[in-house]
Amino acid sequence: RQRVQIQFVEDKQEFSRFPTKAGRRSLSRSISQSSTDSYSSAASYTDSSDDETSPRDKTQLNSKGTSDFCVKNIKQAEFGRREIEIAEQDMSALISLRKRAQGEKPLAGAKIVGCTHITAQTAVLIETLVALGAQCRWTACNIYSTQNEVAAALSEIGVAVFAWKGESEDDFWWCIDKCVNMEGWQPNMILDDGGDLTHWVYKKYPNVFKKIRGIVEESVTGVHRLYQLSKAGKLCVPAMNVNDSVTKQKFDNLYCCRESILDGLKRTTDVMFGGKQVVVCGYGEVGKGCTAALKAMGSIVYVTEIDPICALQACMDGFRVVKLNEVIRQVDVIITCTGNKNVVTRDQLDRMKNGSIVCNMGHSNTEIDVASLRTPELTWERVRSQVDHVIWPDGKRVILLAEGRLLNLSCSTVPTFVLSITATTQALALIELYNAPEGRYKQDVYLLPKKMGESLLYLHLFGALHENTEK
Amino acid sequence: RQRVQIQFVEDKQEFSRFPTKAGRRSLSRSISQSSTDSYSSAASYTDSSDDETSPRDKTQLNSKGTSDFCVKNIKQAEFGRREIEIAEQDMSALISLRKRAQGEKPLAGAKIVGCTHITAQTAVLIETLVALGAQCRWTACNIYSTQNEVAAALSEIGVAVFAWKGESEDDFWWCIDKCVNMEGWQPNMILDDGGDLTHWVYKKYPNVFKKIRGIVEESVTGVHRLYQLSKAGKLCVPAMNVNDSVTKQKFDNLYCCRESILDGLKRTTDVMFGGKQVVVCGYGEVGKGCTAALKAMGSIVYVTEIDPICALQACMDGFRVVKLNEVIRQVDVIITCTGNKNVVTRDQLDRMKNGSIVCNMGHSNTEIDVASLRTPELTWERVRSQVDHVIWPDGKRVILLAEGRLLNLSCSTVPTFVLSITATTQALALIELYNAPEGRYKQDVYLLPKKMGESLLYLHLFGALHENTEK
Amino acid sequence: RQRVQIQFVEDKQEFSRFPTKAGRRSLSRSISQSSTDSYSSAASYTDSSDDETSPRDKTQLNSKGTSDFCVKNIKQAEFGRREIEIAEQDMSALISLRKRAQGEKPLAGAKIVGCTHITAQTAVLIETLVALGAQCRWTACNIYSTQNEVAAALSEIGVAVFAWKGESEDDFWWCIDKCVNMEGWQPNMILDDGGDLTHWVYKKYPNVFKKIRGIVEESVTGVHRLYQLSKAGKLCVPAMNVNDSVTKQKFDNLYCCRESILDGLKRTTDVMFGGKQVVVCGYGEVGKGCTAALKAMGSIVYVTEIDPICALQACMDGFRVVKLNEVIRQVDVIITCTGNKNVVTRDQLDRMKNGSIVCNMGHSNTEIDVASLRTPELTWERVRSQVDHVIWPDGKRVILLAEGRLLNLSCSTVPTFVLSITATTQALALIELYNAPEGRYKQDVYLLPKKMGESLLYLHLFGALHENTEK
Amino acid sequence: RQRVQIQFVEDKQEFSRFPTKAGRRSLSRSISQSSTDSYSSAASYTDSSDDETSPRDKTQLNSKGTSDFCVKNIKQAEFGRREIEIAEQDMSALISLRKRAQGEKPLAGAKIVGCTHITAQTAVLIETLVALGAQCRWTACNIYSTQNEVAAALSEIGVAVFAWKGESEDDFWWCIDKCVNMEGWQPNMILDDGGDLTHWVYKKYPNVFKKIRGIVEESVTGVHRLYQLSKAGKLCVPAMNVNDSVTKQKFDNLYCCRESILDGLKRTTDVMFGGKQVVVCGYGEVGKGCTAALKAMGSIVYVTEIDPICALQACMDGFRVVKLNEVIRQVDVIITCTGNKNVVTRDQLDRMKNGSIVCNMGHSNTEIDVASLRTPELTWERVRSQVDHVIWPDGKRVILLAEGRLLNLSCSTVPTFVLSITATTQALALIELYNAPEGRYKQDVYLLPKKMGESLLYLHLFGALHENTEK
Repeated sequence: RQRVQIQFVEDKQEFSRFPTKAGRRSLSRSISQSSTDSYSSAASYTDSSDDETSPRDKTQLNSKGTSDFCVKNIKQAEFGRREIEIAEQDMSALISLRKRAQGEKPLAGAKIVGCTHITAQTAVLIETLVALGAQCRWTACNIYSTQNEVAAALSEIGVAVFAWKGESEDDFWWCIDKCVNMEGWQPNMILDDGGDLTHWVYKKYPNVFKKIRGIVEESVTGVHRLYQLSKAGKLCVPAMNVNDSVTKQKFDNLYCCRESILDGLKRTTDVMFGGKQVVVCGYGEVGKGCTAALKAMGSIVYVTEIDPICALQACMDGFRVVKLNEVIRQVDVIITCTGNKNVVTRDQLDRMKNGSIVCNMGHSNTEIDVASLRTPELTWERVRSQVDHVIWPDGKRVILLAEGRLLNLSCSTVPTFVLSITATTQALALIELYNAPEGRYKQDVYLLPKKMGESLLYLHLFGALHENTEK
Repeated sequence: RQRVQIQFVEDKQEFSRFPTKAGRRSLSRSISQSSTDSYSSAASYTDSSDDETSPRDKTQLNSKGTSDFCVKNIKQAEFGRREIEIAEQDMSALISLRKRAQGEKPLAGAKIVGCTHITAQTAVLIETLVALGAQCRWTACNIYSTQNEVAAALSEIGVAVFAWKGESEDDFWWCIDKCVNMEGWQPNMILDDGGDLTHWVYKKYPNVFKKIRGIVEESVTGVHRLYQLSKAGKLCVPAMNVNDSVTKQKFDNLYCCRESILDGLKRTTDVMFGGKQVVVCGYGEVGKGCTAALKAMGSIVYVTEIDPICALQACMDGFRVVKLNEVIRQVDVIITCTGNKNVVTRDQLDRMKNGSIVCNMGHSNTEIDVASLRTPELTWERVRSQVDHVIWPDGKRVILLAEGRLLNLSCSTVPTFVLSITATTQALALIELYNAPEGRYKQDVYLLPKKMGESLLYLHLFGALHENTEK
Repeated sequence: RQRVQIQFVEDKQEFSRFPTKAGRRSLSRSISQSSTDSYSSAASYTDSSDDETSPRDKTQLNSKGTSDFCVKNIKQAEFGRREIEIAEQDMSALISLRKRAQGEKPLAGAKIVGCTHITAQTAVLIETLVALGAQCRWTACNIYSTQNEVAAALSEIGVAVFAWKGESEDDFWWCIDKCVNMEGWQPNMILDDGGDLTHWVYKKYPNVFKKIRGIVEESVTGVHRLYQLSKAGKLCVPAMNVNDSVTKQKFDNLYCCRESILDGLKRTTDVMFGGKQVVVCGYGEVGKGCTAALKAMGSIVYVTEIDPICALQACMDGFRVVKLNEVIRQVDVIITCTGNKNVVTRDQLDRMKNGSIVCNMGHSNTEIDVASLRTPELTWERVRSQVDHVIWPDGKRVILLAEGRLLNLSCSTVPTFVLSITATTQALALIELYNAPEGRYKQDVYLLPKKMGESLLYLHLFGALHENTEK
Repeated sequence: RQRVQIQFVEDKQEFSRFPTKAGRRSLSRSISQSSTDSYSSAASYTDSSDDETSPRDKTQLNSKGTSDFCVKNIKQAEFGRREIEIAEQDMSALISLRKRAQGEKPLAGAKIVGCTHITAQTAVLIETLVALGAQCRWTACNIYSTQNEVAAALSEIGVAVFAWKGESEDDFWWCIDKCVNMEGWQPNMILDDGGDLTHWVYKKYPNVFKKIRGIVEESVTGVHRLYQLSKAGKLCVPAMNVNDSVTKQKFDNLYCCRESILDGLKRTTDVMFGGKQVVVCGYGEVGKGCTAALKAMGSIVYVTEIDPICALQACMDGFRVVKLNEVIRQVDVIITCTGNKNVVTRDQLDRMKNGSIVCNMGHSNTEIDVASLRTPELTWERVRSQVDHVIWPDGKRVILLAEGRLLNLSCSTVPTFVLSITATTQALALIELYNAPEGRYKQDVYLLPKKMGESLLYLHLFGALHENTEK
């Protein structure tokens, strides 16, 4: 839901521009949009803004004396270790998986290159893969999302991480290349989020690509690119589409949004939910999560919805279904989750009351017509990170969060448990592809087998890979 | 959900046995199971148990002097009219449809035979069809479910109704035949619930059957029979499957069960919900509705579930997922909604505590192993209609509701609003089939077109057939 | 909450009119209003309307051959026994109390006269008192509320019950007198609900009254009368005010109304709660219970409230606080719980929409201005017991429940568990007063000692009189 | 609830120690405990930790050229202004009050010294007082709680603020003295939170004290000290006890905790609430708020409670009432809100599972026996601000929040709306005392008049001081 769909740019030229510092601008079209979305790594407590030196220009050693990594500051490793430990507490399924490492090493011999957000939760995944026998080299799928301390902690224990917060686009490709292009080490598995890594290997190292035993891809964008490759007959490797697994679809939106809408609003505005009038635009899974949470906290919630089935569901769930214009003058908060454009127009923003909050939990940053607010008569005041007061000539303020981008990506953390489901799915997919008997998977894009999805959920429910024996 | 799937008995012999009073026993296999399920018509206040004469042996006239009907007692018409008026209050969509009758008569010329439960809500449907221009003859799809007063009220205004509560099987077929077989009147539309009427016309009046313009069928069983006919190349009429319309699937189970679980438990046992420990077996739509209602009323709710996705949903919704044996000794109420057999075994019933309640909201009457309770050492005491105390040798009592049959069919009313959705769907389907240009529908089974489903919901949400114009 | 406060009529004359059949009219002022309130004993399934003979004119024997009782029909005893057994299932605290009877008989020697509603739940109380050693004679505190079958079941096991449904006022006093005035048997304890029994003994049998060891009174009215007696220096007996015990105040209104609002609306109208717009007038304990239940069932709930604290609570709990006139045209249901008069006026009823429901959960029958509806241009149609359609000249119907009297008294059952708390309180109060060392209680009105209240709740929570030993 | 009760130290000696830099240690007993509680001012984004110079040693000028203030860094004023603007959005009642300033100036002539937490919300209060005509000098009631940016913003517009985050105890008294002791300006009103300012004026400036027209005190501690003074006959000034106003009692705990428990847990641990097993110790107002929020978010919640009334309430609200030991091995989170000591013992902490979270929402920092965890075999690891992992020898981690101090004070923000109620109460109390006709208030401690409380709530509900005219 949270990624812009990108065309797979079959542009030869593109990759002739090997990343150099000078290459930044010219590369701008080639980088996937997802890799440049703003992103809040909520726990980035140690700000290193004082240190302006590029990591690429520094030489660092971890305590074991190795230097096969490139992170902001290896000295932050200890702090990153703490964050990883916090994350482990709510990722018991991965920890359960590690127990298998004692008896069998299902990933022994696997050489995995990974390209994902580098956060504490990812670190728990990477360290699980290592415990299961894999060698890992890792880079970031987004130039802003790396938790520097976590990258340092991973590097400290010997994982080759190439990533830092605030990479340039040139850095981005340089890091990917450093992961793949290593003397005497050749990857045989890819774990990707967005398809940039896969694309790079496919384009730059076709011989490596052919010998890959499996690709695991997590994002809509990346899956789309894989299907394009497959359709063009160029996908010579089995790939697993983790994004469309039922576990992800069923849990991410409803349960995740139920928690992050509260978290996001509270961290940015300190608003009290009790008694507030809120209109939620759209009653899909995201809207259902948002409304449930706010109703439970004592808000008075209205819903706008054009699909009659969803509208009647909202109605049966106790929400008044209205048109936005009916309530625009009275509501304290507007939350968009429709997936459509211009759900909230300038005309409507003009009629909102002083102090009202506008934010977006939906697909992209076009649900609120933010562009229409960038006119001379309106003053923008940045009052906190991700919080703007837009001030009308008569002094009225409307509080715009994250400039209309996704509130839960920008202003709240994603619950570790939800990330745990995704991460465990990725680990199981890697194990499956790596160990599958020859012929089980062809050169195609697969969904996670249902049985594995169930194993996954057993892991989360009961911490074990056992079969359920009801009664 | 609530009907047993029946094989379409392609047995010629069967129908040679034309219904006679002597024919009861021999017909027993031919009647659909749904037509003999026990059924509570909750509002049957005027008991006529004193009058033992069969309606077939009586001659009655309505106040207009006509006698083309056969009901228990035409004098109950006034009372039935009251029940219909109550039902109209929560069926505004049908009332809105009637407004169309003023301008256009979309069912002018339609001659409809119907075979459904005859309740106040059905009466609102029938009277709507009449207002839209149709002529109707009606009979009951279940030998127990007729509200005699309502049947009388319909007969009073001139609808030819042939139905009463407590028909014999012979009566059942006799009534169907009286509907179809009328001098100088030939039906051109069928509205069926269970397929018995359709079957009868198909078998007994093949020439009539061929000229039918459309069949609307509401039940799983009936739809199954239609598909069988279609597969065998014998369905010469377009039919519409109303059972699988998204509106029915989405609303009936979740929202209906949310209300009827409370209603059914309260009417039978007067139990207080607050503080009770309840285990709900199964977390599908029915289970979700039951748990939501009981949680909201202050019960402490446990869930058993073998499907891991549903189990994790239960977990995320705040219910402890357990195995039944873990909580069997402590719970006050067990509710089954799994669709499986023997979910509650004798062994488990043996361990339940004194005063605990056992009931079934699931598919059929086999979820609780009721048969295992019919042993000599246990005493059964019927303490109220639909309520048995099963008494163990040590004095322990377990309260069994509806002998393990569906609680909401037997012990509660279905909310009128939900029935309104079904009834409006039926009306729209009849209008569509009757008015469709030639060629739109072939000799096949169709689902309600999506656009009509939306119209339906608009009718319920806004009381009008208009298009929604968001914003 | 549910009783009208009655002046203690210190009118000598009154009691000179000894109850005779001729005395009906003249007594009309002396009977407490609570004793004539309409009352639904929900489980009165065996209607004996065919038998018009007054029980006073019949001679009946129970199976043991005794005739010291006067009930409608002793043959209904078996059916009443079933009802008592149902009630026992949710009154475990009283059943726990009975266990004490095995070792000690704390009421051995107690001769109790009781005057309460005679229902299955009361029967469990009476039989508990008997098990604890008491002798009991019982009569009804309300001329409509007796469950005849239960009265029969009690008489069958030898409790002297004088009560039936539909007593005349003369019958009422005759029954009370039969309880008290028995050759060779003199009561030493009184359990009263409304004060009529106490009044009778005080006035007619002053010598008996002086020797009473204690009075337990349950109602507001009765407690008020006791305080008046006490103030006048005429209360020569210790009395216990059970009505104001914290257990009653805390649990009866909130938890009871939360369940009975749903039960009452469903039984009378079959209305679906989901999606309905409801306005609840008043946000005290009753209003809080009603709104919580309806919100949970998916209704869209508004609150009117003039007290600003309660209004802000409603607001924080997620309800829009409105003035009734703002929403009168759109709501489907109005529920009054203010304790004030004319909360819903004729003018407002005129503006309600077709099919809307009006009912009262508050103090008395004056919250809805029902009188204003009794005008010639409006037609009243009784569509079910307790359900009237009031029909405007243009055909609009408003559904009025219980003629504006208390919905939960008239149209739903009170949950057994709540009654169990009251009944156990009464039992503990009797034990306390009967066993108290001389001097502990003076000739005054007492509240239940806090420690006993706690014991009571332990009984309900844990089924035992033990002390809680946390951790 | 959130303050430790302090003895009023009638110790002459104490104040002979006039605050000097050298005086720190000797003063340690005299400072109120509330003034040294740790405190999270959540929005302190601009850390000035680099600047180690004491504000007392700096000379700063605001843009108007005045220097009558002492804050960390006047240049942060712009940022503080943003925070104040955020706060204003949810404090509409105070903004409504400001409108009165246009017509009347009810505080014209008032010279107010204030000693409170200095936060954005307080700033809205102070600026409202100024708008109503008052002159204000302000200091902090807690050495950690000042938002430096807000202090700067107030100083910038000319309010004399003496406060910064991280004051020494000597600084603390120096700041108070600077507020009171100003050449040519003598306060006539006191607004206090904790009683330290009042104490100082009373002791050091008895002549000023005598001429004070009124004291408004917000904390339990301060009110306690006032009652002691009053009892000793030494309170020569009318004082208003804002802490015990019904508005505060009713709203602060229940509604505030309902939101801050989620906020506090999420900010510190990123834990997912859905599916977590949580035990809440204590079911008073705080416990009710916590359980309601967590239940709504999908947690499985248990309650421990020794008071039987609260226990039965918990039960009726749908929570399993358990003893802590029953669930200690299975729960993911323990929250204490009992007001008692050692509710969670070392023995129990030993039995908790790996990754479980322990925190306190109750009265003081003794509910969890944190001291027992400071033993050599356990390792403490500070993983984030306010978050410690306590690590057992076998590697088990228990996550302890805020070292057992109040979670909501330390780890979450208090919703602005709740603070708005308190701040408006303070403003109304100041207006009332300042304008009261002579004789209305004696030299005593008063509660806020009920009528004023209602006015207050009208302001919050409707933004106006009007009378409610129901219907």
